Amino acid sequence: MSETTPPYRPRMTQAGLTPTHPVTAVDEFGDAREVQVAGEFPLTLYVDKREIVTLMTLGAHPEALALGYLRTQRFIAALEEVRSVQVTWDTEAVAVTTWNGVKGWDDKLKRRTITTGCGQGTVFSCTLDSLYSIRLPEVRVRQSLIYGVLENIRRHNEVYRRAGAVHGCALCRGTEVLRFVEDVGRHNAADAIAGYMWLDHMAGGDMLFYTTGRLTSEIVMKVAQMGIPVLLSRSGVTHMGLELAQKLGVTIVARAKGRHFLVYNGVRNIVFDRRPPRPSGPDSFNLSADYADSRRLKTK
Amino acid sequence: MSETTPPYRPRMTQAGLTPTHPVTAVDEFGDAREVQVAGEFPLTLYVDKREIVTLMTLGAHPEALALGYLRTQRFIAALEEVRSVQVTWDTEAVAVTTWNGVKGWDDKLKRRTITTGCGQGTVFSCTLDSLYSIRLPEVRVRQSLIYGVLENIRRHNEVYRRAGAVHGCALCRGTEVLRFVEDVGRHNAADAIAGYMWLDHMAGGDMLFYTTGRLTSEIVMKVAQMGIPVLLSRSGVTHMGLELAQKLGVTIVARAKGRHFLVYNGVRNIVFDRRPPRPSGPDSFNLSADYADSRRLKTK
Repeated sequence: MSETTPPYRPRMTQAGLTPTHPVTAVDEFGDAREVQVAGEFPLTLYVDKREIVTLMTLGAHPEALALGYLRTQRFIAALEEVRSVQVTWDTEAVAVTTWNGVKGWDDKLKRRTITTGCGQGTVFSCTLDSLYSIRLPEVRVRQSLIYGVLENIRRHNEVYRRAGAVHGCALCRGTEVLRFVEDVGRHNAADAIAGYMWLDHMAGGDMLFYTTGRLTSEIVMKVAQMGIPVLLSRSGVTHMGLELAQKLGVTIVARAKGRHFLVYNGVRNIVFDRRPPRPSGPDSFNLSADYADSRRLKTK
Repeated sequence: MSETTPPYRPRMTQAGLTPTHPVTAVDEFGDAREVQVAGEFPLTLYVDKREIVTLMTLGAHPEALALGYLRTQRFIAALEEVRSVQVTWDTEAVAVTTWNGVKGWDDKLKRRTITTGCGQGTVFSCTLDSLYSIRLPEVRVRQSLIYGVLENIRRHNEVYRRAGAVHGCALCRGTEVLRFVEDVGRHNAADAIAGYMWLDHMAGGDMLFYTTGRLTSEIVMKVAQMGIPVLLSRSGVTHMGLELAQKLGVTIVARAKGRHFLVYNGVRNIVFDRRPPRPSGPDSFNLSADYADSRRLKTK
């Protein structure tokens, strides 16, 4: 028998809230019905008693959110620096303590202040340089895997189906959904995934990141920071998100719904092993609402 | 002939960018097609040469966005305080100058810093007290008006249809869409509407605010600040957004799509003058994907 050290884990609360709350609403027939609405709570993050930020969150994964925020904002470099994560909803606070303190707080918070609100709260310009040092692995993504992931995701987005005011993010290996997080903010859901990857001691090289939300520059950055080479979205991509993906080598498959998807970057990595039958008509596909205003360039 | 003073307007650039850019993507058949992606640009806001915030924006309405941000964040109380709004994309900057300076900057920026990222960039706790002094007018909202608005909106959300990575907000009087703004951030689109309301010297008492986005607490707050008593969304509402709407008296109609909608707050203001025919079956409506996990409480 070989002795193994269990993977490191900070001391942590497990203070996740029930994500939805029943309320009464009236439908278009004038009938009252009980429906679910998503929770939304302020959660103020303290590190070694220093106030860092207040996040508005669904509250289902507060510990992972706090860790992931500190990770993607590059305030803390490794999980092993974290001693404990304590959530107290009475005071709407999450207190993170470190073993040895965080060096350069003033500098880090000053930079944050300057770029505040930039892309809604992320340290942007400051992390860009370090981002370009990221080297993502080359991967092959089969079309059948994309369809398998989309199929499996459908079983997970419960809060969305119930309350419709959240975004979902998933961490997948193969077609398996390892983690699925929903939150009222796209950024929070992505940060919570980043937190879980730390806690689960997972590297992202063989993974795929799915989100229901739009692929803005920030989401592309966060995913690259997690070391994940493939980004799949039900929604679209922005021009800046796309440029960043091209620079960082993130494969972007967006507007993925049902059988449809569009590969915006890294098409050489996609293996088209499950092409659907082409619709009939001269170019009937261009008429599809899903690709309105797109124009087929050539037919192979 | 009576002499009238033209409504006040600051000196302004008109530096709106084309919202979408063509890129080549590859669809599920392996065919290349030209598609549109939404722009996303950093825009750093300076007031009297002081750096305030960097917003990530589509860039189509930069002047209104800057004014609206300063309005909803309560940095500036009236349009008449603003001397000029100058956007320079080369430096990704919008420079706002005031006639007499802004009092209490340090205090205002300090508060912002403390609550930074709170709900993704809004001064939250600080504006809440002043919010509760808002008195919104009692209104009647006909079901036929809701349907009319939804029908008219469909003609406006062009960028979304083309690029699918934006949220749209509309300012409506009756069924008329007075302003329609799309942006990569929900908050930006709402702020730009607030800016246009200033520029157009419009009060919100007889208006309706539509958004494609989720009704979080921040959006409800912004709309109440604009003095608009009715909020209509294609998406859902969060628990906190709902509580705030109840306190402030904002009528909330959400998950509005086609003939469906749910009134979450202010049902006494809704006139059901266009009830659709009830679907057949004992309670077939409960099976509708649009209201999954809701439960009809009673039938009038």
